[in-house]
Amino acid sequence: MEPAPARSAVTRLFDPHSIAVVGASADPGKRGYQAVRALQEAGYDYPVYPVNPRGGRILGLEVASSIEQLPYGVDVALIALPAAAVPDALRHCAAVGIPAAVVLANGFEETGAAGAQVQTALARAIADTGIRVVGPNTSGLLNLATGANLVGIQNVPAGAISAITQSGNMLLSLINDLKVVRGTGIHAYVGLGNQVDVSYDECLAELARHPETGVIAIHIEGFTDGRAFLRSAARAIRETPVVVLRGGRSTAGRATARSHTASVAGSDAVAAAVLRQAGVESVDRSDELAVLANALASTEPMPAGRRVVVLSDGGGHAALAADALAAAGVELAWLTDDTRDALRRLLGPAAAVFNPVDVAGATDTDPALFADVVEILTDDPAVGLVLIVGMYGGYHLRFDAALAGQEAAASARLLERTAAHGVPLVVHSCYAGEEIAHHDLLRAGGVTVTSSIDHAARIVAALQRRGKTLATATQRSSFDLPAPGPRLVSDRPMLDEPAARAFLSRQGIDVGAWTVAPTVADAVTAVREYRRPCALRIVSPDVVHKSDVGGVRLNVTAEAAEATAAAMIGSVTSRVPGARIDGIIVTPMAEPGVELLVGAMRDPVFGPVVAFGSGGVLVEAWDDVTFRAAPLTEVEALEMIEETRASRLLDGHRHLGAVDRKKLARLLVRVGAIAAAHPEIAELDLNPVIASSNAIAPVDVRIILSGNDTEEAER
Amino acid sequence: MEPAPARSAVTRLFDPHSIAVVGASADPGKRGYQAVRALQEAGYDYPVYPVNPRGGRILGLEVASSIEQLPYGVDVALIALPAAAVPDALRHCAAVGIPAAVVLANGFEETGAAGAQVQTALARAIADTGIRVVGPNTSGLLNLATGANLVGIQNVPAGAISAITQSGNMLLSLINDLKVVRGTGIHAYVGLGNQVDVSYDECLAELARHPETGVIAIHIEGFTDGRAFLRSAARAIRETPVVVLRGGRSTAGRATARSHTASVAGSDAVAAAVLRQAGVESVDRSDELAVLANALASTEPMPAGRRVVVLSDGGGHAALAADALAAAGVELAWLTDDTRDALRRLLGPAAAVFNPVDVAGATDTDPALFADVVEILTDDPAVGLVLIVGMYGGYHLRFDAALAGQEAAASARLLERTAAHGVPLVVHSCYAGEEIAHHDLLRAGGVTVTSSIDHAARIVAALQRRGKTLATATQRSSFDLPAPGPRLVSDRPMLDEPAARAFLSRQGIDVGAWTVAPTVADAVTAVREYRRPCALRIVSPDVVHKSDVGGVRLNVTAEAAEATAAAMIGSVTSRVPGARIDGIIVTPMAEPGVELLVGAMRDPVFGPVVAFGSGGVLVEAWDDVTFRAAPLTEVEALEMIEETRASRLLDGHRHLGAVDRKKLARLLVRVGAIAAAHPEIAELDLNPVIASSNAIAPVDVRIILSGNDTEEAER
Repeated sequence: MEPAPARSAVTRLFDPHSIAVVGASADPGKRGYQAVRALQEAGYDYPVYPVNPRGGRILGLEVASSIEQLPYGVDVALIALPAAAVPDALRHCAAVGIPAAVVLANGFEETGAAGAQVQTALARAIADTGIRVVGPNTSGLLNLATGANLVGIQNVPAGAISAITQSGNMLLSLINDLKVVRGTGIHAYVGLGNQVDVSYDECLAELARHPETGVIAIHIEGFTDGRAFLRSAARAIRETPVVVLRGGRSTAGRATARSHTASVAGSDAVAAAVLRQAGVESVDRSDELAVLANALASTEPMPAGRRVVVLSDGGGHAALAADALAAAGVELAWLTDDTRDALRRLLGPAAAVFNPVDVAGATDTDPALFADVVEILTDDPAVGLVLIVGMYGGYHLRFDAALAGQEAAASARLLERTAAHGVPLVVHSCYAGEEIAHHDLLRAGGVTVTSSIDHAARIVAALQRRGKTLATATQRSSFDLPAPGPRLVSDRPMLDEPAARAFLSRQGIDVGAWTVAPTVADAVTAVREYRRPCALRIVSPDVVHKSDVGGVRLNVTAEAAEATAAAMIGSVTSRVPGARIDGIIVTPMAEPGVELLVGAMRDPVFGPVVAFGSGGVLVEAWDDVTFRAAPLTEVEALEMIEETRASRLLDGHRHLGAVDRKKLARLLVRVGAIAAAHPEIAELDLNPVIASSNAIAPVDVRIILSGNDTEEAER
Repeated sequence: MEPAPARSAVTRLFDPHSIAVVGASADPGKRGYQAVRALQEAGYDYPVYPVNPRGGRILGLEVASSIEQLPYGVDVALIALPAAAVPDALRHCAAVGIPAAVVLANGFEETGAAGAQVQTALARAIADTGIRVVGPNTSGLLNLATGANLVGIQNVPAGAISAITQSGNMLLSLINDLKVVRGTGIHAYVGLGNQVDVSYDECLAELARHPETGVIAIHIEGFTDGRAFLRSAARAIRETPVVVLRGGRSTAGRATARSHTASVAGSDAVAAAVLRQAGVESVDRSDELAVLANALASTEPMPAGRRVVVLSDGGGHAALAADALAAAGVELAWLTDDTRDALRRLLGPAAAVFNPVDVAGATDTDPALFADVVEILTDDPAVGLVLIVGMYGGYHLRFDAALAGQEAAASARLLERTAAHGVPLVVHSCYAGEEIAHHDLLRAGGVTVTSSIDHAARIVAALQRRGKTLATATQRSSFDLPAPGPRLVSDRPMLDEPAARAFLSRQGIDVGAWTVAPTVADAVTAVREYRRPCALRIVSPDVVHKSDVGGVRLNVTAEAAEATAAAMIGSVTSRVPGARIDGIIVTPMAEPGVELLVGAMRDPVFGPVVAFGSGGVLVEAWDDVTFRAAPLTEVEALEMIEETRASRLLDGHRHLGAVDRKKLARLLVRVGAIAAAHPEIAELDLNPVIASSNAIAPVDVRIILSGNDTEEAER
């Protein structure tokens, strides 16, 4: 027999085969007592070693009077000591071969300068010893499969959710919300608190490997390494759905999170967009984390390319379901003529046989008709998911107790039929809050039964998105960064426009025709040779915002070129006295089109990202920009375009022609490749890019290098 | 003793002192049986008269064999007959002095042509007899104060909500959702179904008069007379909060609603905006109707001008609460230095004493501290509402059963303190789903206790909005329309621009300087006299979209005027052969500013409305337009401006100066007055209006009269 492979510290953390409780206590009010009790109550079968200088016994276990007295190589130490005592305890733990610890205490960086000092000592102990630490400022960690309950909460229901949160109370919310949902329970949990060492990406990767994990639910206030998280998530989601609730998205929330876990939250819009890119399901409402985690753990994804059918027993709920689905971005299926004919024969003249299908009373005396209808619907190739809304399951309460049998039989048939056809089922019922056995039968079969139409629609949207993500898995980013290309250097942070244009041209981006005219006479010649009105822009290392100082002139004709160029130079030199003028850049005017923004920047959390949206001078005001981590794929670029309001103008709007979206997507991919390979580029702006049916023309071009790179170039 | 005043038909409907059940049945499976049973079970104490040609007895009551045999003047007839039999039955009812009937049957207009015929017969019976009808296609009506339960649902919990819905199943949802909320119950309910006679506005006015009504909750798919609803709502909300859930807001939902209750839904954006204007609280999610109705029935509005403080026992929930409040448009209060000092003394160094206030563990052993903190917070003049988030009420479950007493005492103090200070309290607790006596004590005292931070934030936003609405009550619209002014007439639907400008000038709108130049030479003279670049626009009755045919030229200088004007005329006549050219309108170019849209139109549901938003050619693409019913007040105009993204540009953006919002509001009020007094104006468009720090200049002006008025003018 071969020896088992050595288990990593993080693997041992989530599945410890022995636990030391450092700071164990005989006082039932103390965490150091509750922790030992919780392990016993949860049926943890491996050794538990309480540690307390007073020795003695706690809950029947012999107490070691110091860490040094522990046997060598205990898997995990739970440190229930005050903050100041933690760094030393960790050193002692490492000395007796403990690879990982959970630090509960607060009073570290989140409380200000004094706490930050203790946190520094903690970080030093970690660096010196290599011990892996969860926390500090955490509620702990648990694994219900083994009873390794280091959190101390009792009666946690077991199930398929592995949760990673920043705040311990979020576990309580999750447990309580799951009870309302009557859904699955928890498999494993970790609270990362101040996240001084063990990080979200490591926990995500580890928990995704647990066979008990059906979904990973995450609450986070700030990533320490966003790029690592994206890499870890993109790998995990191929097998395991990941749901993320971010705290601190608003300005007020961000300030709160900073004081809570000392997190750097970064840009909310960037985080939301790149998580979507990684195939993570983000929730905006904290009351939907449990709802979505439960549904994604239980329900199969919706087949890509198909759509949703709504089946109701009342027009009021049907219209609200259509509204809620529309709000969630879900379109309804067009049923075939055959389907509608079959429904009409089954349901009679009063029914609505378009989508939503409304049985209009036909089921009042025979709820088994629901199963008949769903059998017809699942035969329709357009249908990828069935959403039932109304009173389903409550007929025996609303009309006649005798209907309970028919309803239970219908539910069994619904389960069988939808499973056989790979068409997931979601049920809204205003009786979902009642104890109804066949509702629970549906739930056990992977069907969400909820009293909220909005939750149902939100779940449908997530199942649809997950289906699409899985279908495009091979065309999606790994989030690995390429090796850096040859450095771009400059003697100033901002490249002058000719240098920026030349660089982009070399990188394969079509920036259109352009001429650098060293003199006014050269500018006149250039305009004449272009044979159409041109834009003139000043080239000066001393001018950052050209248009603010009169350094841009549009629609300049050959006749007007000389006077205009001279006036422009006059305007710039009078408003920026002593400005060095390197010349004038001349470009033919772009034909009319949609003004877009294409850009790239370095996000402090996620690294290089590409930006796309509505462009022009009012770009901040329009607030129509979305992001993707770079490098990105063409599929991701097309999704990115689709997210913006600007995309509504791309298919022809009033006098504008249709823009080639694939060509635009390829530009975004190219910009992403450049940003990924050039970490020295702090900012790259093509704004506006004017897109028409003939061309996608970057009109203004700006590249800013990061401080370090310009310094380096200056040396 | 004076005789009691005669009660109106609608008053008798909602508070009947006698009921006839037409189509009563001895079969327990039939509505005609269930209705009689429900009245008996609900303790309805007035006479009930079953009617059935077979006679006999039902549930101990003697059955009249025809309507004619009923005593004269029964208050309400419940008609449980098939659709085709209803018109005749109504005529018989009217003949024996029954003023009002509830018609349950479906199979009318919502099912197509045959049903529409029956509905016509129904409408004729109503018109001929004056009987008032609820329905058809309704689940009925109930009043729990008297036990007048015509719906047939049993065990409806009594409470403060009066509900008006279009669909009967919505009552079931409401009852079930209220159970989850552990909130108040129902006082009265009516389902209006196809709304062929008795309308939302009448029910709203009637139910607002019931002293038992604490809130009116409405589900509606389409208004028959939107203006009447606004009038009724604006009166009601001064005493009674009104919450509205609209079904059929999306395109798909609208089609569904039409097939359900044959409703005309009109524009979603207009409906949402004018309901807001009327002080109605709209909910976008159907799962929030019960939540908001319960909170508004129980909780006092938030004092206007003050803000919200969040009090948490964990940073995770605090950050999520700040996020949810921000998403709901609620700002946090700035606490005074005194408050922060007092909190610090009370809570110690680990606590966060900014807003959100985080006790950071201080309450773990003494939850009574919550009451101490709230005493400090309610002394702060900035605080208008306290939102507690976290585990409040669950300390005895989480930590130590012995804490239950402290929690109960704290709740009693919280109630007393917040009531004494007129500062409402809202509580989020992840233990809200448990049976906790002092949570119920809080609820009974008007405090929402919920496990959803998002619901809590939504409630806070509604309480804040209600406080503002009440504070501005005297400055808000009545929605009455003024007497029409002298008619504007024209020989074509669209006024030519000089006529439109002249009309607006007469109406007191500053349209800036403008000159009609009959000839090119006159245009040149006009440009010269303005001494600055001008815009030239063609005046022709044959051109609707001037810029599409080259009929607009901007930035024309005196030198270029002649050639440009001639070219413009050439372009128009070549693209619209035979176009009559009445001249050229010359206006000096507006100075740079924000491009806005100001307009008015007649909404098919609500009548004249004013539009405001981002203007320019891309107005549809930007989709940044909001509405108000005309005439509107200055307060309402300012709120309207505030709702748009365009408003972000008004306080100075990049090179643009700040725009005078009050002046802009007065323009909107003026446009509203014109639209209200001129029903012949189908559309009035000022697009763009260029707003800068010096001027608010309508650049292009368009008025279109409705078909009838132009016909009249042609006669």
